[in-house]
Amino acid sequence: MGFSYLNNMPLAQARKAYLARLIESGFASRTETVPVPESCGRFTARAVYAAISAPHYAASAMDGIAVRAHDTFGATETTPVTLKAGQYVVVDTGDPIPEGCDAVIMVEELVRTEDGVTIHAAAAPWQHIRQIGEDVCAGEMILPGAMEITPAAIGAMLAGGVLEVEVIAAPRVAIIPTGDEIVPPCADPKPGDILEFNSSIFSAMLRRWGAEPVTYPIVKDDFDAIRAMVERAADACDIVLVNAGSSAGREDYTASVIASLGEVVYHGIAIKPGKPTILGRVGAKPVLGIPGYPVSGIIVIDNLLRPVLDHWFRQGPDGTHLVTATLTRPVVSGLKYEEFVRVRMGYVGDRLMASPLARGSGVVTSFMKADGILTVPQGLEGYPAGETVTVRLLSEEHRLRNTLVVIGSHDPLLDELADMLHSDAPELYMSSAHVGSMGGIMAVRRGEAHAAGIHLLDTETGVYNLSFLKKYFPNGGVKLLRCVGRQQGLMLPKGNPMGIRCFADIARPGLRYVNRQKGSGTRILMDYLCQTDGVDPAAVYGYEREELTHTSVAVQIAGGSADAGLGIYSAASLYDLDFLPICIEEYDLLVPDSAWDTPMVQKLVELLKSDKFRDRIEAMGGYTLDRPGTLIELD
Amino acid sequence: MGFSYLNNMPLAQARKAYLARLIESGFASRTETVPVPESCGRFTARAVYAAISAPHYAASAMDGIAVRAHDTFGATETTPVTLKAGQYVVVDTGDPIPEGCDAVIMVEELVRTEDGVTIHAAAAPWQHIRQIGEDVCAGEMILPGAMEITPAAIGAMLAGGVLEVEVIAAPRVAIIPTGDEIVPPCADPKPGDILEFNSSIFSAMLRRWGAEPVTYPIVKDDFDAIRAMVERAADACDIVLVNAGSSAGREDYTASVIASLGEVVYHGIAIKPGKPTILGRVGAKPVLGIPGYPVSGIIVIDNLLRPVLDHWFRQGPDGTHLVTATLTRPVVSGLKYEEFVRVRMGYVGDRLMASPLARGSGVVTSFMKADGILTVPQGLEGYPAGETVTVRLLSEEHRLRNTLVVIGSHDPLLDELADMLHSDAPELYMSSAHVGSMGGIMAVRRGEAHAAGIHLLDTETGVYNLSFLKKYFPNGGVKLLRCVGRQQGLMLPKGNPMGIRCFADIARPGLRYVNRQKGSGTRILMDYLCQTDGVDPAAVYGYEREELTHTSVAVQIAGGSADAGLGIYSAASLYDLDFLPICIEEYDLLVPDSAWDTPMVQKLVELLKSDKFRDRIEAMGGYTLDRPGTLIELD
Repeated sequence: MGFSYLNNMPLAQARKAYLARLIESGFASRTETVPVPESCGRFTARAVYAAISAPHYAASAMDGIAVRAHDTFGATETTPVTLKAGQYVVVDTGDPIPEGCDAVIMVEELVRTEDGVTIHAAAAPWQHIRQIGEDVCAGEMILPGAMEITPAAIGAMLAGGVLEVEVIAAPRVAIIPTGDEIVPPCADPKPGDILEFNSSIFSAMLRRWGAEPVTYPIVKDDFDAIRAMVERAADACDIVLVNAGSSAGREDYTASVIASLGEVVYHGIAIKPGKPTILGRVGAKPVLGIPGYPVSGIIVIDNLLRPVLDHWFRQGPDGTHLVTATLTRPVVSGLKYEEFVRVRMGYVGDRLMASPLARGSGVVTSFMKADGILTVPQGLEGYPAGETVTVRLLSEEHRLRNTLVVIGSHDPLLDELADMLHSDAPELYMSSAHVGSMGGIMAVRRGEAHAAGIHLLDTETGVYNLSFLKKYFPNGGVKLLRCVGRQQGLMLPKGNPMGIRCFADIARPGLRYVNRQKGSGTRILMDYLCQTDGVDPAAVYGYEREELTHTSVAVQIAGGSADAGLGIYSAASLYDLDFLPICIEEYDLLVPDSAWDTPMVQKLVELLKSDKFRDRIEAMGGYTLDRPGTLIELD
Repeated sequence: MGFSYLNNMPLAQARKAYLARLIESGFASRTETVPVPESCGRFTARAVYAAISAPHYAASAMDGIAVRAHDTFGATETTPVTLKAGQYVVVDTGDPIPEGCDAVIMVEELVRTEDGVTIHAAAAPWQHIRQIGEDVCAGEMILPGAMEITPAAIGAMLAGGVLEVEVIAAPRVAIIPTGDEIVPPCADPKPGDILEFNSSIFSAMLRRWGAEPVTYPIVKDDFDAIRAMVERAADACDIVLVNAGSSAGREDYTASVIASLGEVVYHGIAIKPGKPTILGRVGAKPVLGIPGYPVSGIIVIDNLLRPVLDHWFRQGPDGTHLVTATLTRPVVSGLKYEEFVRVRMGYVGDRLMASPLARGSGVVTSFMKADGILTVPQGLEGYPAGETVTVRLLSEEHRLRNTLVVIGSHDPLLDELADMLHSDAPELYMSSAHVGSMGGIMAVRRGEAHAAGIHLLDTETGVYNLSFLKKYFPNGGVKLLRCVGRQQGLMLPKGNPMGIRCFADIARPGLRYVNRQKGSGTRILMDYLCQTDGVDPAAVYGYEREELTHTSVAVQIAGGSADAGLGIYSAASLYDLDFLPICIEEYDLLVPDSAWDTPMVQKLVELLKSDKFRDRIEAMGGYTLDRPGTLIELD
C-alpha cells in the first residue's frame, strides 16, 4: 500500500538539473517557415535581414510640387519667385521624385498664378523627400534571432520585402488523462465519477504560452495501456504530460511506465501543492507525471514545465511582476515544502492587501479568484497576519486599484452585486471573501476592506449590529448601509422526512446536523438558540462539522450527507429544500468612512438603491427590502 | 488642390463624443455560445452559474481508510485502537465516503495487524473528507458577466457542470486598402509602387485585442469603387476601416464616401501623427478613415478604434503602464497637436532613459524598436533633454533592466552583436541608437549608455579616440574596449562610371555627394580630408545632404540618387558598390566604469573575444581584428 517517493527535491534544484538532463539528452526546438502576416507572437528562429530598402525609391513626403532647390534660392516674403511650367512637377505623397529634382514644396505654400506657381520661401535641398531606405535599408538586420514578432515587426519585415519568416515551431504537448474513475465533463456524473477537466485547463495554459496541446483519450489505470499511450504520444509529440497516477496510491503506474520507456529523473518535488510530480524523459523528449488535483497540476506546469518551454522558445524566464502586500490572515506552512498560496488582493486606500484563498488542492476556483501567488519558502513555518509579504501578481495592478474589497458574512446577493457592479461600470470589479460577520468587523477595523456584510444579533437587546459597532468602533469612523432583511431558519431535506417541528429537534438521536464556522452571524444565532431553547451542543451530532457558507450547508443537506442546518431561505430554495422559518435578521453593509468616497463604494450605494437590485433580490426570495442603500443612524 | 479639414478635434473629446454618437445610433456587441474548453480569453456575455456541485459527492481526500470517528475515540500512542474488518473501508483519494462513515485516516498512520488495522490517534469527525461543493456549489455564481475567461475559470465551469458558455462575439473588422499606387507586398516593387502592409499590421493588432480582421481587396482611387466596397463591408462586418484616402490630397474620397452612406462625425483629429483621420458611421456601424502612413495608422487605431472595441467587449480602458524616465534628447512638438513620440528605453544603473526614435510617420521600424510612447500634450512645445517625463511602457520592465544600451557611432556589427547577445543569453537584450561618435561620448558622460561605439580621429596626432577621452573624461571613470579596425573610403556606383580617382574628385561639377550627420566620426573624417586635400565644402554638391548610417549612404548610391559618399567597406560591399580605400580607422567601444560589472557588458566582452564574433566579422569584410574585447591603455 504505497511507497515513499524517490526524493523530495527542492524546486529550484529540480528545475535546473532536469533541464540540464534534457539538454544533454538532445532536447531542442524545431523551426518552421510561415508567411510574415501570420507570424505575430511567434519567435524568430534566426536574425531577419531586409531584402529591399523601404522606401525603395526617393519619394515625396508631401502633396505639392517637386523642384530643383537652386531654382528657388532667393525667394522670400518680399521677393517671391515664380516657377514656370517645366521648373516643377506636381507630386502627391508617395510619388517618386522626378529626375533632376531635389526638393518638394508643400501645396499649402504655393500660390497659383497665370504663368506658374509663386513661392515666398526658398526650398532647402532634400526637404520633404523620403530618401531611399529612410525606414529600412536592404541587407540591414530587421530582427535578431529568438525575438517575439510584434505587429510593427510584421510591417517592418513586409516593408523590407521579407514575405516569409523562419520561426520557432510550436511544441506539440501531449496530455494523457489516466484513471479508472475519470470521465469526460458532463452535467450528471455518478458518485465516484471524477470529471476530467484538467486537460482543458492545461491546454488553455499551453496555448497562451505558444505551445500546441494535443489531448489523448482517457486511459484506465493499467500499466500496459498507459505504457502504450505514452509510447504513442512520445512518438507523435515533443513533450508528454501524464495526468494523475503520479502519487503513491495503489494504482499509480506512471513512474514505472516512464522508467520502462526511458528515465525517471526526479519523483517527488518539495513543493505544496504538487509534491507527487514525476520529471522524466523518453529519449530526448520530456515526459512529466502531473498530479491529479487541478491546483497541483497548474502549479507544477507553471513551475516545472514552463522553464522547459522557455528553453524551447529560447527565452529567458518571464518577468514575474512582484509586489509587496499586507497579509490579512496568517499563513501556516510546513517546513518540508516550498508552498504556493493563492491570494486575493485589493487596494484599500494605498495599502495592497493579500487574503489567502482556500488551500485545498482540489479547489480550482481558488486559482480563478487568485490575484496573486504567495510563496512560502521551504524551511519557513509561514507568516503571521499583518506581515508584509512579496506576492507574484497575476491580475493587472490597475484592476486591483478598482476592486471593491468585501470581507465578511456570506450572502449570495454579494455575487449578484459583483455582476451588477462590473456590468454597470466595466472599469470596476468586486472581490468578496467569506469570513463571517465578526471577521468582517475585524477586517474593517484593520483597514483591509471597503465593506463588510454583517448580521450580528445582540442577544441582550435583540437588536442587530449596532451594539457591536459601538463596541468595536468606540470612536466611530464607520457607516452602516441598510441592505436586506433575511429569513433565517432550519434547512431540511425535501419533504422533511424526519418530521422536524422546532429548533430543539436538531438534538434528536440519529439526526446529522451541519454547522457554520465560529464568528459567523449564523453560528452566533445557532448558539443563541441553543441557550434559549435549552439545547446542549454536545448532544447535537455534527455540531463541530463546519461549513463556510449558507450555500454549502444547503448542499450537504441536498446531497444527503446531513439532515438539518441553520441558514437563509434563499440558499434553501436554491436546492428546493424544506425550510422551517425561525427569525428575520438584518443583513447590513459596514463601510469605513475612509472608503466612502471611492468610486467603488459610491457605485455600490447607487446599485443598492436601484430597481434592478430590487428585482434580482425579489427573484431570489426570502428577503425583505426596506430602503436598501440608505444609512442607518449609529446615534 | 486640397481643402482644409472639417475640424481639429482634441483627442479625448473626439474619442468620447464619437463613442456616444455610435451608442445613440445603436452600436452594440453580439454574443455567441462556445464550448467551455475553447473559451479561454473570451469575455462572458452574462453571469455563469454552476449546474452541479464539485465535488458532487463526499469524497476521500487521501489514500487510506474510511471510518466512523466515534469508533476511533480514545486511541493514543499508548492506548492504540484496533479496527476490525467491517469497521473500516479502504479508500483511495477521490473515492466516495461509504454510508455511515464520517472520517478518513491516512494510509501512513495505519499499522496492519492480523485481526485488522491499528491506529494510535483518534480521528476527528469529517477529517480528510472533501465535502460536497467544497470547490463549487450548484447554483453558485462562478463568473460575473463581462469577465475574461482564464484557464482556471475553464476548470471551474467544467467542474460546475457548465459545458457551454455565452461569450461576447469577436467583432468582424473590415480593412479596406485603397490607392492607385498600392500593391501587395513583394520583393521587387517598381518605383512609385507602395507596398500594402498596413492591413497586416492592423490585423495583428486587432487579433491581439480579440477582434476578427477581414482584409478586403485593394481598391483604386475611385469614388464609386470605394463606395461600393465600403457598402459591402459595412453589410458583412461590425466595424469598417478604410485605409488611406483620409487626407486632403487630390484623390481622397473616403470622407465623401462615408458622408454619402452615413455620417462623418469628425474629420481631422488634433494628434500627430494621425491628424487626417475620419470618424464616421454607416447606420450603427463604425466606419473609420485611417491615415496611410503606418505609424499614423497604428496610433489612430490604438487611440480611437481601441475604445470602440473596449465598449464592444464591455471592458474598461486597458491599464496602461506609466513610468517616469529621463529624456536623452530634446523633443520639439507643435502647439496645435497632441503628439505621440516613440521612445527607446533602457536602465542605466537605476535611471530609466528614454531616447526619441525617428519621428517620420512612414518609419514603421520606429514602432518595432519602441519600448514606450511619450505623449506631448496639445499646447506644449515639447521637452528639453534631461527632462523627467512620463512614458507609457510597451516593453516589459524586466526586459528593460536586462537591456544593453549602446548609443553612438553606427556599425552593422552592432546588429550582429545584438543577435549574438540574445541568442547566447536569452534573458539579455541590446538596444542601439545611432547618434555618431560625439553623441556617444556625450551619452556616456550623461550616464545614458552602457557603451558607445566611437572612431574619432585626432587631426593633430592622427591617433584615434584617446585624446577625446582625455578631453571629455578628465577624471577618468571610463574604459575603452578594443573592437575593430575599419576600412574607410569613398563608396562609388558599381564600375565607377564617373572615373573617381581620389578624394578631391568629389568636388567635380555634376557629381552628387551624400554626406553624414555632424558629430559622426565619418563626418569629422570628411571635413579633415577636405582640409588636407584642399576641397572647399561649398563646392561639393550634396555636402548638406545628411544620412545617419553607413548603410543609408550606400543605399543612396546604389539607388542612383547619389554618386559618392564616405563610408566603410562592409556597407559598400553589402550593396556591391565600388570602393576607393582612404584609411583604416579604429572603431572602439567606450564603457563607463559604472556599467562594467553588469551582466550585459560582461557578456559583451565575452562575445567580442569569441571565435563566432571573429567569424561573423570576417564574413562581412573590410575589418581588421586585433585582440577585440581587450582594454586599451588610456595612457
